[in-house]
Amino acid sequence: MFESAEIGHKVDKSTYEQELPALREALLEAQDELVVKRGFQVIIIVSGVDGGGRRESVHLLNEWLDPRGIETHGMGAPSDEEEDRPRMWRFWRALPPRGKIGIFQGSWYSMPILDRVYKKSRQSDLEEAMERNVRFEKMLSDEGALILKFWFHLSKSFQETRLKSLEKDARTRWRVTERDWRHFSLYDRFRKISSEALRLTSTAQAPWYIIEGSDERYRSLMLGKIVLEALHLRLNAEHGQPHSIPSLPNLPRVDNLHILKSLDLTQKLDKATYNKQLETYQGRLNVLTRDPRFQKISVVAVFEGNDAAGKGGGIRRITGALDARMYQVIPIAAPSDEEKAQPYLWRFWRHIPRRGRLAIFDRSWYGRVLVERVEGFCSEYDWLRAYNEINEFEMQLVEHEIVVVKFWLSISADEQLKRFREREKTGFKRYKITDEDWRNRDRWADYEQAVCDVVDRTSTQHAPWTLVPANDKYHARIHILKTLCESIEAALDRVKGKK
Amino acid sequence: MFESAEIGHKVDKSTYEQELPALREALLEAQDELVVKRGFQVIIIVSGVDGGGRRESVHLLNEWLDPRGIETHGMGAPSDEEEDRPRMWRFWRALPPRGKIGIFQGSWYSMPILDRVYKKSRQSDLEEAMERNVRFEKMLSDEGALILKFWFHLSKSFQETRLKSLEKDARTRWRVTERDWRHFSLYDRFRKISSEALRLTSTAQAPWYIIEGSDERYRSLMLGKIVLEALHLRLNAEHGQPHSIPSLPNLPRVDNLHILKSLDLTQKLDKATYNKQLETYQGRLNVLTRDPRFQKISVVAVFEGNDAAGKGGGIRRITGALDARMYQVIPIAAPSDEEKAQPYLWRFWRHIPRRGRLAIFDRSWYGRVLVERVEGFCSEYDWLRAYNEINEFEMQLVEHEIVVVKFWLSISADEQLKRFREREKTGFKRYKITDEDWRNRDRWADYEQAVCDVVDRTSTQHAPWTLVPANDKYHARIHILKTLCESIEAALDRVKGKK
Repeated sequence: MFESAEIGHKVDKSTYEQELPALREALLEAQDELVVKRGFQVIIIVSGVDGGGRRESVHLLNEWLDPRGIETHGMGAPSDEEEDRPRMWRFWRALPPRGKIGIFQGSWYSMPILDRVYKKSRQSDLEEAMERNVRFEKMLSDEGALILKFWFHLSKSFQETRLKSLEKDARTRWRVTERDWRHFSLYDRFRKISSEALRLTSTAQAPWYIIEGSDERYRSLMLGKIVLEALHLRLNAEHGQPHSIPSLPNLPRVDNLHILKSLDLTQKLDKATYNKQLETYQGRLNVLTRDPRFQKISVVAVFEGNDAAGKGGGIRRITGALDARMYQVIPIAAPSDEEKAQPYLWRFWRHIPRRGRLAIFDRSWYGRVLVERVEGFCSEYDWLRAYNEINEFEMQLVEHEIVVVKFWLSISADEQLKRFREREKTGFKRYKITDEDWRNRDRWADYEQAVCDVVDRTSTQHAPWTLVPANDKYHARIHILKTLCESIEAALDRVKGKK
Repeated sequence: MFESAEIGHKVDKSTYEQELPALREALLEAQDELVVKRGFQVIIIVSGVDGGGRRESVHLLNEWLDPRGIETHGMGAPSDEEEDRPRMWRFWRALPPRGKIGIFQGSWYSMPILDRVYKKSRQSDLEEAMERNVRFEKMLSDEGALILKFWFHLSKSFQETRLKSLEKDARTRWRVTERDWRHFSLYDRFRKISSEALRLTSTAQAPWYIIEGSDERYRSLMLGKIVLEALHLRLNAEHGQPHSIPSLPNLPRVDNLHILKSLDLTQKLDKATYNKQLETYQGRLNVLTRDPRFQKISVVAVFEGNDAAGKGGGIRRITGALDARMYQVIPIAAPSDEEKAQPYLWRFWRHIPRRGRLAIFDRSWYGRVLVERVEGFCSEYDWLRAYNEINEFEMQLVEHEIVVVKFWLSISADEQLKRFREREKTGFKRYKITDEDWRNRDRWADYEQAVCDVVDRTSTQHAPWTLVPANDKYHARIHILKTLCESIEAALDRVKGKK
């Protein structure tokens, strides 16, 4: 969920100063149009971690936009008046009318998340509150509202550095209170719970935008550009378009960094080390699957990655360690006629393993949000809803004690080219390279964007993505085996804990 | 929820035999078209109370339709294979392909409801399972599936009579087992829990159809006609129509009975009794509102009814018993400009009372599903989603210890005519009668249908409708006061129970 917001996004000063004037002008123009048309209201939620830039962002929006068309609400603890009414009353009261922009610092998310962090409520309370939020926002969106939800994130290490450096300086020391450190001690819990809240409430009508908050220029440009993009899309939407599903803005790029680029593809393993570690981890995997507790769980492993990234090789190093009766490798190609006559996820559900077994998917249900999205094989609405359906699907697996591990094998464009050329030369590998592979290469950037979105929207607490630097095959294979072993170990511990 | 299915619907033999051949032919034709087009799959869920006709209905569908296009699934307890996979796996496995009809006796509703009835699960488990079902069905409907959910209902007294009469007859005694009586002893609990499950899962894409099961001919005709109507609507849907929102079939009428007709409008109170009871109940109401525990709750009373049914008079008999600082009467007319610029429910939220207060709505949020629906002031999609939004709204009130009482004042067309004529004659009442009132009279049947739907879809466990026979004003006013007193008393008891 937060992976893309922990990689040190940055915008330099000159870029910022160059882009800002045009952005501000465009924002004002869009707001003008909103006021004139009065067709819908805009609801902007500003939330996130301490120090992530919430307050500053609210100020910025007030500075950039015409304040006469804005209503800003800092929703803290409820007043007496508000305590006397149902929880949502205060938010209803604060809704902006059509033609206006309502900015909420503190929203219908704040209390349920904090209550859960401070253990004042149960898990089911949090889930119920999130379901209620989804229904509330669906109603708003059905009524025509444009809902933009921002989450400003800081990595744990950055958060720590930030507090310490504030404390070091005599002039800023006052800004760090005991409360800040208490919050920091809850960082992991807060991260876990908010990532869950975001997953449950990131809908097609009102997705969350997670922005890394460490660099002020980056987060400001992102905020401004997303607001602008969303306003444009909405103002120019055709009338017949179902208002309940505003197009998800393609996230603007304001720096050149993304989660794939932040991977260190130079990591390597020499052959001797590889052979030794391969033996270690294959042995460990074999022992794990013969543990009696393994009969209480099962494993679903997903392999996705660039063409020629080494998925097959990675899979074979797993199956090589297993009893053949225990696993099944499921290669996913185009759907059969029978599969086409069913809902999208049907062809994956049918392969869900029994307890005590492993299913290894060579490509998977992510096809819809990768190749089908990029190649336009399905409608935008269909791939947008797929993120939620996939999260729901994987959640059901995890609740049934199925270990879900997902690998994205990442290679550089150069490395891919090298491998394609090699394959063409090597007779028995020639079948592996087709015109389609060359075509996909032309869409490299589109696929990268799709992968980043996949990680942002489907790397969840219960089923995280593992991004595997795969320029070096040895390194990649060990990375995969190690991750798989560790995931199974954690699951076996949970099974034990349950007894 | 079940009110309309407890009034003794019946179809006589000759009507049944007259209608059946055409229905069967039309069903077969529609199925043919479904098979040829292969555009979507049909999922029919058959559930309800014991003896309500589930088994018979499944047989009927198999008899009426071409069995080659049907897959029938009697989903009982899960098999070993199924236990080893996540709960929904067995249902995914059983989904019909496009062009086919899948009939489920026992579905994704059965186990969660029964587990809760037998207290094997908590309330939050039930709610979570229902939310999951909603997401599952949303996905199915997004994938194009037509989902028809039938609930066959029997009133408690009918259920008892049925079991006893089966027992009396030596030839049928074997059909009544101890299990049947055990189930019967859980009738109230089952009714409460299933009504909640139905409320949570009756969505615009997949609403529940509740059918009274006591008369075989009635329930069979209803079933057949709803299936036919839904197939027709779907087969003739324009291509551009958003597939996620199939039109809700207007429920066919197969007998002349409905919930309003089943009211006994001849009930009367003589003046002396009225005066005495008025004093009693007004006194009781006054005492209740001065109870210290009343400061922990509040009251929202909704008055709807035919024109000239006596809403104003009823309201005055309540306010006459109250301290003027405690209540507010909110007359609902056309929305103001400010209100028009907000989501529909905004103008009602703003009037939600503080603790210790009463808000009396003279007409209400039901306008959207009554006048706006009938007069076409809003789109079908908008009034369809309103049922869920209203249930959600009232649920939030109730969770905040607000007593929600809803009155529908029902008078006959003749009585209304009499009152209109009187008003025209009486000078100071003449302003009360407008052209609009006469126009509404022309739409009597449409309004009746809308009211029946309101009761079916929004009379919930937590906020039930009270249908008030109002041909006699005295009777109506006492009925209202008494209901209000009893509802407040129940709430005060709950407050006490919480300490």
